Amino acid sequence: MSLLEVSLLDRLDPALASHIRRIEHFKQSLTLLTWDSRTGAPSKGLVQGARVRSTIKHELFLLQRDPEFGRLLHALSEKTSEDPLVSRIAAYHLRSFQLANSIPIKEFQAFANEQSQTSVVLAEAKKTSNFALVKPYLERVFDYHRKFSAYWGYQDHPYDAQIKQFDPDVDTATLDQVFSELKSGLLPLIQRISRASKQPDRSIFAREFPYEQQRELATRLIQVIGYDFDAGKFGETLHPFSSAISPGDARVATIYKRDVRVSALLALHEAGHSIYTQNIHPQLVDTGLGIFTSYGIHESQSIFWEKFIGRHRGFWEQNYGLAQSLFPEAFAGVKLDDFFFALNEVRPSLIRYEADDLTYNLHIIIRYELEKALLEGSISVDELPERWNDKYEEYLGIRPANDREGVLQDGHWISGFGHFATYSLGFIFAGQLHGQLVKDKPDFDRLVAEGRNDVILDWLRSHVHQYGSSKSEYELLRDITGGEIDTRPLLSYLTRKYEDLYELQPSSQPAINGE
Amino acid sequence: MSLLEVSLLDRLDPALASHIRRIEHFKQSLTLLTWDSRTGAPSKGLVQGARVRSTIKHELFLLQRDPEFGRLLHALSEKTSEDPLVSRIAAYHLRSFQLANSIPIKEFQAFANEQSQTSVVLAEAKKTSNFALVKPYLERVFDYHRKFSAYWGYQDHPYDAQIKQFDPDVDTATLDQVFSELKSGLLPLIQRISRASKQPDRSIFAREFPYEQQRELATRLIQVIGYDFDAGKFGETLHPFSSAISPGDARVATIYKRDVRVSALLALHEAGHSIYTQNIHPQLVDTGLGIFTSYGIHESQSIFWEKFIGRHRGFWEQNYGLAQSLFPEAFAGVKLDDFFFALNEVRPSLIRYEADDLTYNLHIIIRYELEKALLEGSISVDELPERWNDKYEEYLGIRPANDREGVLQDGHWISGFGHFATYSLGFIFAGQLHGQLVKDKPDFDRLVAEGRNDVILDWLRSHVHQYGSSKSEYELLRDITGGEIDTRPLLSYLTRKYEDLYELQPSSQPAINGE
Repeated sequence: MSLLEVSLLDRLDPALASHIRRIEHFKQSLTLLTWDSRTGAPSKGLVQGARVRSTIKHELFLLQRDPEFGRLLHALSEKTSEDPLVSRIAAYHLRSFQLANSIPIKEFQAFANEQSQTSVVLAEAKKTSNFALVKPYLERVFDYHRKFSAYWGYQDHPYDAQIKQFDPDVDTATLDQVFSELKSGLLPLIQRISRASKQPDRSIFAREFPYEQQRELATRLIQVIGYDFDAGKFGETLHPFSSAISPGDARVATIYKRDVRVSALLALHEAGHSIYTQNIHPQLVDTGLGIFTSYGIHESQSIFWEKFIGRHRGFWEQNYGLAQSLFPEAFAGVKLDDFFFALNEVRPSLIRYEADDLTYNLHIIIRYELEKALLEGSISVDELPERWNDKYEEYLGIRPANDREGVLQDGHWISGFGHFATYSLGFIFAGQLHGQLVKDKPDFDRLVAEGRNDVILDWLRSHVHQYGSSKSEYELLRDITGGEIDTRPLLSYLTRKYEDLYELQPSSQPAINGE
Repeated sequence: MSLLEVSLLDRLDPALASHIRRIEHFKQSLTLLTWDSRTGAPSKGLVQGARVRSTIKHELFLLQRDPEFGRLLHALSEKTSEDPLVSRIAAYHLRSFQLANSIPIKEFQAFANEQSQTSVVLAEAKKTSNFALVKPYLERVFDYHRKFSAYWGYQDHPYDAQIKQFDPDVDTATLDQVFSELKSGLLPLIQRISRASKQPDRSIFAREFPYEQQRELATRLIQVIGYDFDAGKFGETLHPFSSAISPGDARVATIYKRDVRVSALLALHEAGHSIYTQNIHPQLVDTGLGIFTSYGIHESQSIFWEKFIGRHRGFWEQNYGLAQSLFPEAFAGVKLDDFFFALNEVRPSLIRYEADDLTYNLHIIIRYELEKALLEGSISVDELPERWNDKYEEYLGIRPANDREGVLQDGHWISGFGHFATYSLGFIFAGQLHGQLVKDKPDFDRLVAEGRNDVILDWLRSHVHQYGSSKSEYELLRDITGGEIDTRPLLSYLTRKYEDLYELQPSSQPAINGE
């Protein structure tokens, strides 16, 4: 499939092209309006702003379910087009058309309304660590999820319908499989690390890291990995996110925590998302395909830059000098090796987005297991906080003292089930991409250590980014690795890296030496 | 007309209310998207962003001209409603409905397209001071203005149709009249000032005013006049503007010039616009009436705070200490009186938005006379630069050295003729409001000197702001002053102020002593 130089929409019926353009422009408006609401919109305007976005969202929904649009799409997809990009555009929009038509308008509106109320109440509940406050809201929202799974349809498990909203190629059976592999690979490794005699100096990142310098460091680091400031904006927010408006406008909003380690990695993570968007082929803009192909692949890009580069020793050979010059007191006399070891400390904790490489997936698995049970109806919302805490105790050996640092910490469940799972999928995919990259560029480690992130970005651009969603998740994977989703490259990478760091005896478990 | 506590839209047919709400939400989106594009959107995303806004603008146009909407509005306005607010809502939207239907869709789209291209070319022409570059674009745009005047319809002069897009109550005959009064009042006064022996010390504002401190000063000053930072945002841009999204979100974008005098007054000006929006009655939001009633009244509010407060001696009795503490070197040993005299220096200049109180209206009159002639066809676009320069020589005694500091300085003519005239109308209205305020609060000067801007804001809120566009421009004026548009309060105020400042013999001209 090659991306030609003429506008792709010109190959379509003009009425269809114009309708698609409207849909895409509505999406881009919504992304920008949402960016604004989360990066400094005034408090007194938030409620009205939410009303405005909900109108635009509703108009978008109406455009997507428009009968005449459906007719044109069906007509197009029935012609056996010789142009695979045109077929892809038709298939992409036909799917949204079908999804949008599967839900009665009134229910869609009622759900949207329930969602915005729940967001407000959840924020309040979190502030006061009061789960009871948000419980009835969550019950109603989860009822909608169950109902929508039925509307959307699924083959084996209602969760299929949920995960496919985020990653259309993935199903529940696959998730069960990969999560089980991750658990058996990671749990013993985390155990061995907790008993290791060599441990990092935790005091390093407990020091003072002034805000202005943290911002300077984050700005410099995302520049180093290739974030284009002329095609984006770097702002601040409460919950870091990236805004994929268009390749010319891919923004990053981050937050600065007390611990500069968290701040730096969050910035690299969100910039990784936006670097993906910035490098999508411009010819795909406004077709529907000018965006990340799935949440899993999107996450693979953020995780790649955050974890495979930002936690790489070579990266810090390049950038530790900068960090030292910005934080001369905190890092005075701290050797690169000690800094690097502390940066990669493995230590079970309660807050997902501050987690280390190894425990991170367990945070996700806990959420996956709970949301599947909620969807099946095998646990009730009432039981949720206790079940959450039990699982933290089981998998991570720690128990939240309250629901604020437990089940109330994220808001993802308001929009649907399945979003969390894509975080681990992204990690697995990033492992596969890294595995292939190391084969294609055997001097990978040296490239990182010499700051040649441009070579790495070129590889990602040509193998992943440029295609936007003109290739599906599994098509990308197959074209790059020749295979399917595979946890082995990730487990093998993590095992080697952390055995080395903690000076453990190399493991002999076959599951994690498969690669 | 009283503003009740229930939602005004609840008094309408639900289908009509829902359509109006959609229209208003589209407008609010557009205002916010425009704000973003002008306050730091990335350069590589600007073209795509303009496409997106043009789609939303077109959707808005379609909503406004929707036949079923028209039918509902006609039905409503034929009922002799006992509820004047409902009648006003109907009249407001019926007017947009008629305007939108008066232009064929294709021409509206072609014009919108021509406009965006012209904006880009004008910016380029300005950079290189190359009028020839933008000439053919302006010719086409002005042809549209002529055509649209005919579509919209007018009684006496095609300019009527233009000015009524901004100030529906005003016509060309009125403008001719008030501009002639301003000329005869101001030209001799400016002449007398230029010959005055007492002149301000020009060196004061030629000193260094570091950026950070300028920003601090502007922030503090707009806070002092009552700008609510929780219902807005204070950003930066190339051409200062205010964004009236809703009372809860009224933003200000300003610029910092070398001369702190310009920066401070620009910030007060734009904050004045947004303070108006912030104080509109919340019940009017989403009805169409929740916005400034006309450009003239909008401008009266910015000019009031910029010129009647920001250039008031009492205001600086309160705030000069702050300015001195921020710019200790520039203002070292500068007495308040000398600062104040230099702040109010009258001196013909070429750039409109940097002009002093007295020459400001002449900048507007020059534009008004030229755009009227362009619309009549009595001058051609070819002749425009020379005619512009001739008029500057005639009225202000100075001649632009190039078109960048001449006819290329503003972009207002791309959207229509008449916008400039509202700047002088606003000045005249502000003069009338000030005249009435001084009658209602005889201790006005003392209030300003004591920093009781809250008392002044209360007066403006209750007499002007709260009504949004539920009262028309002339209704507001009549209810406040008992009369019509009147240049005398302004001319009387300016004459007294500047005779006093420059120690001139009091003039005996009746035109300017009428008040």
